[in-house]
Amino acid sequence: MTERVYNFNPGPAVLPLDVLRQAAADLVDYQGVGMGLIEMSHRSKEFIAIIDNAESLLRKLLGIPDNYKVLFLQGGASSQFYMVPMNLLGPDKAAVYLNTGTWAKKSIKEAQAFGRITVAYSSEEDNFNRVPAHDEYLVADDAEYLYLVSNNTIYGTQFPSFPGNGKMLVSDMSSDILSRKIDVSRFGLIFAGAQKNLGPAGVTIVIIRDDLLDKCPPSLPAMLNYKTHADKGSMFNTPPCFAVYVVGEVLKWLDDMGGVEVMEKRNEEKAALLYNEIDRTPYYRGHAEKLSRSRMNVSFKLPSTELESRFIGEAAALGLQGLKGHRSIGGCRASIYNAFPVEGVYKLVAFMQEFEAANPA
Amino acid sequence: MTERVYNFNPGPAVLPLDVLRQAAADLVDYQGVGMGLIEMSHRSKEFIAIIDNAESLLRKLLGIPDNYKVLFLQGGASSQFYMVPMNLLGPDKAAVYLNTGTWAKKSIKEAQAFGRITVAYSSEEDNFNRVPAHDEYLVADDAEYLYLVSNNTIYGTQFPSFPGNGKMLVSDMSSDILSRKIDVSRFGLIFAGAQKNLGPAGVTIVIIRDDLLDKCPPSLPAMLNYKTHADKGSMFNTPPCFAVYVVGEVLKWLDDMGGVEVMEKRNEEKAALLYNEIDRTPYYRGHAEKLSRSRMNVSFKLPSTELESRFIGEAAALGLQGLKGHRSIGGCRASIYNAFPVEGVYKLVAFMQEFEAANPA
Repeated sequence: MTERVYNFNPGPAVLPLDVLRQAAADLVDYQGVGMGLIEMSHRSKEFIAIIDNAESLLRKLLGIPDNYKVLFLQGGASSQFYMVPMNLLGPDKAAVYLNTGTWAKKSIKEAQAFGRITVAYSSEEDNFNRVPAHDEYLVADDAEYLYLVSNNTIYGTQFPSFPGNGKMLVSDMSSDILSRKIDVSRFGLIFAGAQKNLGPAGVTIVIIRDDLLDKCPPSLPAMLNYKTHADKGSMFNTPPCFAVYVVGEVLKWLDDMGGVEVMEKRNEEKAALLYNEIDRTPYYRGHAEKLSRSRMNVSFKLPSTELESRFIGEAAALGLQGLKGHRSIGGCRASIYNAFPVEGVYKLVAFMQEFEAANPA
Repeated sequence: MTERVYNFNPGPAVLPLDVLRQAAADLVDYQGVGMGLIEMSHRSKEFIAIIDNAESLLRKLLGIPDNYKVLFLQGGASSQFYMVPMNLLGPDKAAVYLNTGTWAKKSIKEAQAFGRITVAYSSEEDNFNRVPAHDEYLVADDAEYLYLVSNNTIYGTQFPSFPGNGKMLVSDMSSDILSRKIDVSRFGLIFAGAQKNLGPAGVTIVIIRDDLLDKCPPSLPAMLNYKTHADKGSMFNTPPCFAVYVVGEVLKWLDDMGGVEVMEKRNEEKAALLYNEIDRTPYYRGHAEKLSRSRMNVSFKLPSTELESRFIGEAAALGLQGLKGHRSIGGCRASIYNAFPVEGVYKLVAFMQEFEAANPA
């Protein structure tokens, strides 16, 4: 096998090598049953065990209360942008959104077709370099929910905590689910595309409080109604079996590693290494304000775009790949999700120091 | 490796072993790039080559004209049941559906929310044991399209040809796409969930005539509008990368095998072996009327449900697995998609003869 690079991609992203190896073996012959993982019926006892185990592990690792359903859906987080308001709002109902980045903005746009949407906060004028403190915005009493993106992948910002104002929260946690402890009971609905912290692209986890299922309009197409999937245990139609399987394997790995608490410490450690380097020298400038810094995505700039290009190219040649920032803000970005090894962060920090020395501004 | 069974599953279903082996290798390290297939960015040049090649091969193998777009979507064929009428109809628009089985019936139910739907034919009273001849139903002039399911997986029926009445066709080809030559130009839209003839569950192919894209209502959620995906080359959001990759590998295999013409002959040969056995003895009774017989799914009964259980159990013990019929009609079903080897059909026929001799009615 080729030497593995350090993969700083924002998603799809690095996964544990042991998970990939196990998946490769199961793909050809699942646990000795004589057929491959993706050839098995989704109604087989083998696949039912796979999806049940994935759900159980997610419940254990996130501490999901019994009055929540876990759904494995298709269509990416982007499909949740409209499914959330389509199911939870209506022409006479209101919701409050916080506009902290591209994905929040897309959610707001989709939601406006399904209810009265108030944008209570926006950092768009500052190129989304921060998230609000909880006293910086107001949540109307009549709002069904307060919507926020817990981590903004592109800008490298993250809510350090969740608002405690009593309003039901809905959160897109695509890029930081399972990276830190959360209190699920404060949320009505959490969703996360798998391709950052959970597994491959192709499955989206939805965690929904069960009383909300009765509010989903029965007139919706069956596939767009959360209740359909909750009632059928995510087996109303054929689920994306392979993606569900990999999520299950990633969750096993996470559990073996010690769970979310251990991961949270590791993530703090990794992020601190990079932010310390950014704070050490004005050569590297972080995009996010300090109090809004993400532990998952570290977005930063160099003194010039020319130096940024050289930095990204030289880093890639050394096996530090995927450091190019999103086209909407440019610069560099190091995505350091759960499965990203701390060794890679040390290597990046060392490279940052060498690069600065070799390429004065 | 365990010996491979003969996998008669209706979907997810058997795939070429070479494809599984290649996928296993690429999963751990994609073509020596130092990261696994599902860890690569969907914007990487490697993945763009994967999705472009998959599309090119599909165009070549199916003879898709240039004025059609090929989309790789999520959500299964079940999502197309509502996306088709949501995009192509409206309150004042009509469409004609043929009710030839469970999936047709579900499509009809979903479509009724989006336009005036006429069911011009139904074989439901006969437990869907046939599809209509083309002079058995009328298609109203004002219909936007005529909708039919080309192959009915559960009942083992298949349209031997497509209607030539000039009306634009829309077809669910989930269970027989690429199993026979078709004239794509007669269709406005073709869709197929991948997990039968194309690859794993988790991606759905949509082939749509490009003039229809302008009819898609701009007010739809972006993810539900075909135009969104057509304009962005199926990259509006992160596509289900692994499933797209496997589809591409299956298409390469199909191309290497000689393409759809060769596959069609092989499928005729495999189906004929089974139907000849069914016709040889009254012990096995085919569900479908002769003129409606499917070359993909052969549904049949034995003299009693007790014998059927024994048949399925003994067959499985011999490595002939997945022969249980769908719960809605019972009995047995042999699904023999493109990747199912002819040797397995010979083995099944031999077993049918032995079983009959050993278990007189």
